[in-house]
Amino acid sequence: MSHALTNRILAELNRVRLIDPHSHINPHAAAAKTLGDILGYHYYTELAHSAGLARDRIEEPGLDPKEKVSRLIPRLCEIENTVQYGWLIDLCRAFFYFEAGTITEANWEGLYDRALETLSQPDWEQQVLERSGLDAVFLTNDFDDPLTGFDTDRYIPCLRTDDLVFHLTKLETRQRLAATTRIDFDNPLEFEQALGALFQRFTRGGARACAISLPPDFEPVPVAAPAAGRLFATLRSGSELTLEERRQFSQFVFWKLAEACAEYRLPFDLMIGVNRRVYEAGVYQGQDLFDGRCSLIQYRRLFNAFPRVMFPISVLASGMNQELVSYSWIFPNVATNGHWWYSNTPAYIELDCRSRLQAVPQSKQIGYYSDMYKLEFALPKFTMYRQVLARVLADDFVVARNWTEEQAVELGRRVLRDNVERIFPKISSNAS
Amino acid sequence: MSHALTNRILAELNRVRLIDPHSHINPHAAAAKTLGDILGYHYYTELAHSAGLARDRIEEPGLDPKEKVSRLIPRLCEIENTVQYGWLIDLCRAFFYFEAGTITEANWEGLYDRALETLSQPDWEQQVLERSGLDAVFLTNDFDDPLTGFDTDRYIPCLRTDDLVFHLTKLETRQRLAATTRIDFDNPLEFEQALGALFQRFTRGGARACAISLPPDFEPVPVAAPAAGRLFATLRSGSELTLEERRQFSQFVFWKLAEACAEYRLPFDLMIGVNRRVYEAGVYQGQDLFDGRCSLIQYRRLFNAFPRVMFPISVLASGMNQELVSYSWIFPNVATNGHWWYSNTPAYIELDCRSRLQAVPQSKQIGYYSDMYKLEFALPKFTMYRQVLARVLADDFVVARNWTEEQAVELGRRVLRDNVERIFPKISSNAS
Amino acid sequence: MSHALTNRILAELNRVRLIDPHSHINPHAAAAKTLGDILGYHYYTELAHSAGLARDRIEEPGLDPKEKVSRLIPRLCEIENTVQYGWLIDLCRAFFYFEAGTITEANWEGLYDRALETLSQPDWEQQVLERSGLDAVFLTNDFDDPLTGFDTDRYIPCLRTDDLVFHLTKLETRQRLAATTRIDFDNPLEFEQALGALFQRFTRGGARACAISLPPDFEPVPVAAPAAGRLFATLRSGSELTLEERRQFSQFVFWKLAEACAEYRLPFDLMIGVNRRVYEAGVYQGQDLFDGRCSLIQYRRLFNAFPRVMFPISVLASGMNQELVSYSWIFPNVATNGHWWYSNTPAYIELDCRSRLQAVPQSKQIGYYSDMYKLEFALPKFTMYRQVLARVLADDFVVARNWTEEQAVELGRRVLRDNVERIFPKISSNAS
Repeated sequence: MSHALTNRILAELNRVRLIDPHSHINPHAAAAKTLGDILGYHYYTELAHSAGLARDRIEEPGLDPKEKVSRLIPRLCEIENTVQYGWLIDLCRAFFYFEAGTITEANWEGLYDRALETLSQPDWEQQVLERSGLDAVFLTNDFDDPLTGFDTDRYIPCLRTDDLVFHLTKLETRQRLAATTRIDFDNPLEFEQALGALFQRFTRGGARACAISLPPDFEPVPVAAPAAGRLFATLRSGSELTLEERRQFSQFVFWKLAEACAEYRLPFDLMIGVNRRVYEAGVYQGQDLFDGRCSLIQYRRLFNAFPRVMFPISVLASGMNQELVSYSWIFPNVATNGHWWYSNTPAYIELDCRSRLQAVPQSKQIGYYSDMYKLEFALPKFTMYRQVLARVLADDFVVARNWTEEQAVELGRRVLRDNVERIFPKISSNAS
Repeated sequence: MSHALTNRILAELNRVRLIDPHSHINPHAAAAKTLGDILGYHYYTELAHSAGLARDRIEEPGLDPKEKVSRLIPRLCEIENTVQYGWLIDLCRAFFYFEAGTITEANWEGLYDRALETLSQPDWEQQVLERSGLDAVFLTNDFDDPLTGFDTDRYIPCLRTDDLVFHLTKLETRQRLAATTRIDFDNPLEFEQALGALFQRFTRGGARACAISLPPDFEPVPVAAPAAGRLFATLRSGSELTLEERRQFSQFVFWKLAEACAEYRLPFDLMIGVNRRVYEAGVYQGQDLFDGRCSLIQYRRLFNAFPRVMFPISVLASGMNQELVSYSWIFPNVATNGHWWYSNTPAYIELDCRSRLQAVPQSKQIGYYSDMYKLEFALPKFTMYRQVLARVLADDFVVARNWTEEQAVELGRRVLRDNVERIFPKISSNAS
Repeated sequence: MSHALTNRILAELNRVRLIDPHSHINPHAAAAKTLGDILGYHYYTELAHSAGLARDRIEEPGLDPKEKVSRLIPRLCEIENTVQYGWLIDLCRAFFYFEAGTITEANWEGLYDRALETLSQPDWEQQVLERSGLDAVFLTNDFDDPLTGFDTDRYIPCLRTDDLVFHLTKLETRQRLAATTRIDFDNPLEFEQALGALFQRFTRGGARACAISLPPDFEPVPVAAPAAGRLFATLRSGSELTLEERRQFSQFVFWKLAEACAEYRLPFDLMIGVNRRVYEAGVYQGQDLFDGRCSLIQYRRLFNAFPRVMFPISVLASGMNQELVSYSWIFPNVATNGHWWYSNTPAYIELDCRSRLQAVPQSKQIGYYSDMYKLEFALPKFTMYRQVLARVLADDFVVARNWTEEQAVELGRRVLRDNVERIFPKISSNAS
């Protein structure tokens, strides 16, 4: 009975059209071209590497996509248990007429060719959006991305600011910012002017969020202008900053970004907890890990200082989810956002989803984002989430609290779709 | 079948009469007077504020209770998903003849008036105790509460010591302690005498626990008398203590409290992990949060030094629950106590309850306390707990371990009721 | 249906013959002699002590086993709820013709005598291995254990190195190492030679793992030879090392062990997170606890430095399990290993098992080890694990992902058995 109930709720959730609030889609090449693009997703390369495939077999320069797939296939049997492999099978069945339960050395070539045929259709991008129920997809744009040549109602710009906060100490990054804003900056005031120009271009270009990923030990605090001025002076002189100065410089830039978010009314999407390049011999994008010892208490000054900026927050460690629930329950400007990366597996989604639905105002929860690099992954990833969500709605709301199925589905619709529009509203172009 | 089994166990648990081992009840105004007292519970004001209601709309001085309710109602729809909202509906159905599933702008006034009628009955306090199955309720008494004018068998005094440990540096607190004990104290020895007088008054007044809430970074250690003497001298001189001196002074007072607990045979109820005033613009009692990075290893010296003091422990972060299970399994003087605040939602209760029942001696587990400010909340809060407990007993004991239903119910009874009496026994008045 | 499915999978898992990859079995006295050996397992003594039995009642010198049991029995009723008590009942039913659900003051003597009869059979050791499905059991050998006089195919040596890493500062430990290797060492180079001799003896003696348990604050880093040389010189002079020097000395020895593991192709089994002697008045082996604030990030240099050494990892805190999942998913040389000690209860095993099966390559997961001191405990402990595993396979694979039962059982077989052979292969005796 509960199983049938879950399936009825799931069927309704499957009808909800989606806006995916975080992805790494390239709007100029949004869909995959070959199965190589699919199996090139870092989940498959890193898991295959973890299971024993040498990195240089995967990342050999100039490797033909079909050859790359042929090298990955023999290792896939070691990862058939993973949910990421499950996405792959779901995707192949949904889009490539695949009927087997596993991809093997015997059946992969036929799959490769059928995939190529499908992916080569001129309207494939439109088809995959439609069949995945996607109305729009948020992008991850470098600060000097041009934001032109694509439909920004479908592919919504999002200003990604990791480079500014963590790499503005590099001359090259400063030159890129000066070039894109046409503002030479050499002190805090000029830097603020450059940021202003940047935010103006992004908000006029349709951006609906500013975003950043942050290491576990990051703690946002304001940095006074004179101290920041000395840091700019050191950089100007060509000297290296000390570790402590680098930390302070990152804090300065981050705080200025938050001020710009306030001024330009952009939500500031924080993805908290990643340590970059922990496994330096790992495959591309398969080098980052985390330190679970991180707390949202580090963000208290930020949340207090910017009551008008909405902070949708993703945490990398499921162990931080209870803090996220509690901070979202108390702070009006903190919202829960999706299930990120190492927490994006059903075991963790289930606990995190349940605890959020039980204690955070329903208007402040963004259920899920795909984090995908190619459009084909929205379908299996959102499907995984919807299955968990349907089960939680059935058990915790219909059964435990006697909600009607309609109420449960409505709650699901809010976290799946409505809150994306509410929390990341369209900015009128003359804001500020 | 498992569902029916759970319900049979639940029906038995519902018959167990309760002693609520921790509340904030005012024994002179134990029940609510209006729906304003119900909706004024910080869970509703803080969640409504989190969902967008301005604090000054909620906390306007002199606000009429009905007007206050009328302002909260429109925001309640944003928190219908929360379990705290579930308590509200359960409570209104149980006590106020409410039949709808949600409180709306259309139906709230009728509810307000029916509630007023119910709450105005002269024997309402007795009724709500009876209908909630409550035999007695522990209080939270300031150290200078008079403890008179109420039945201390029904409302059991509990000495709350946060002010002593964290605010004795304030002249006003020292004066209050001197006044209530009639002992002027200006050095460690005199302070111990004051504490002795205080504990004597409380134990003679029927107190059955000493209690305190502690921040995540607190670490109890003994402080030698000369060092403590210097701190008293500094205070006497009117100087401010440094941060480090304040920390040491708190440690001194805390350790002396533990010694008094040993002498007067009071359990020392530790509520570990709260950071106060994290969100300073929040509503009353809606400003506190936590830092999950806290460990019971900080308490090793305490647990070792006081083998005869029982320490019932609440942890704010569910992430600390496994430590609590393990420390209770190893230390004879450590017991598990309820599901506190941000961990008091079914998703966390379930995991925490299961892990405790599987590994801590059954005699050392206090299942639940209400933490309520008004009597009406015992019913829905204990109901939530009993539902989780019944499910865990059904799944983990009857199904997984072939226990009889009677055995399972008996285990439930122990953690719900018997252990409260065992762990917080009546103190004979001439103890010490 | 799901229940029947789980039982069908469980029945198949019960047929899998086991190699237990971690135990404390004494190969010269592998089985229990009396019920006193069973109830002497630290779980029962520490839980009985936690429930109020004085340590000196349990550890009285020269205590007769039957008398010891008679003292423990009255306290067992307080721990009937624990899963550890569940093991005891399962064990008594499986081996000692016990039919009651609890051991009481009325029935224990009969049980004691029947147990004695069973355990006194000359072929009991063979019987218990057979009835438990055990093909082989890994040992925990001190570095100067002789490794002779037993069948090393059945009882597989494992070099335990806690003493070397944490107690080589003691003269006695250094003398023991010098004696067993016949190499006097007084500097880093000579110490490496001694380690070489030690690893040679162990690998020739059939050892298939090097193992160690580590405190939460341990961080492996290489220590340069000159710094290590100074530490040896200080030790030679008879001076005490400072705390910081002791830490560095432990790091030096640990790193050298990892180098030896690389050279001799031994997996290095890390058991991370235990604080020793937290409760010093506790019973034997019932004094250790943990600090949940520990991260695998502390091991980044180790994992990067030794790509050819496999590190099967156990974490004491379930809160570290997500890090373990993530590090095993990224690092080819990190594998998940069992459910250790305070995480070895169904509530934690379930979450930890689910998250591992969903995201770590199936070839890199060792499902379970017994950690037992007497052979009789393999049956109930593996049974507990198999029950959880069967449920997870049923729910997360057959139901949620449409796997066939055969596929699910095959996955179970890999983590239960095959991976032990894969991750701890037999070393050819002329390795290095």
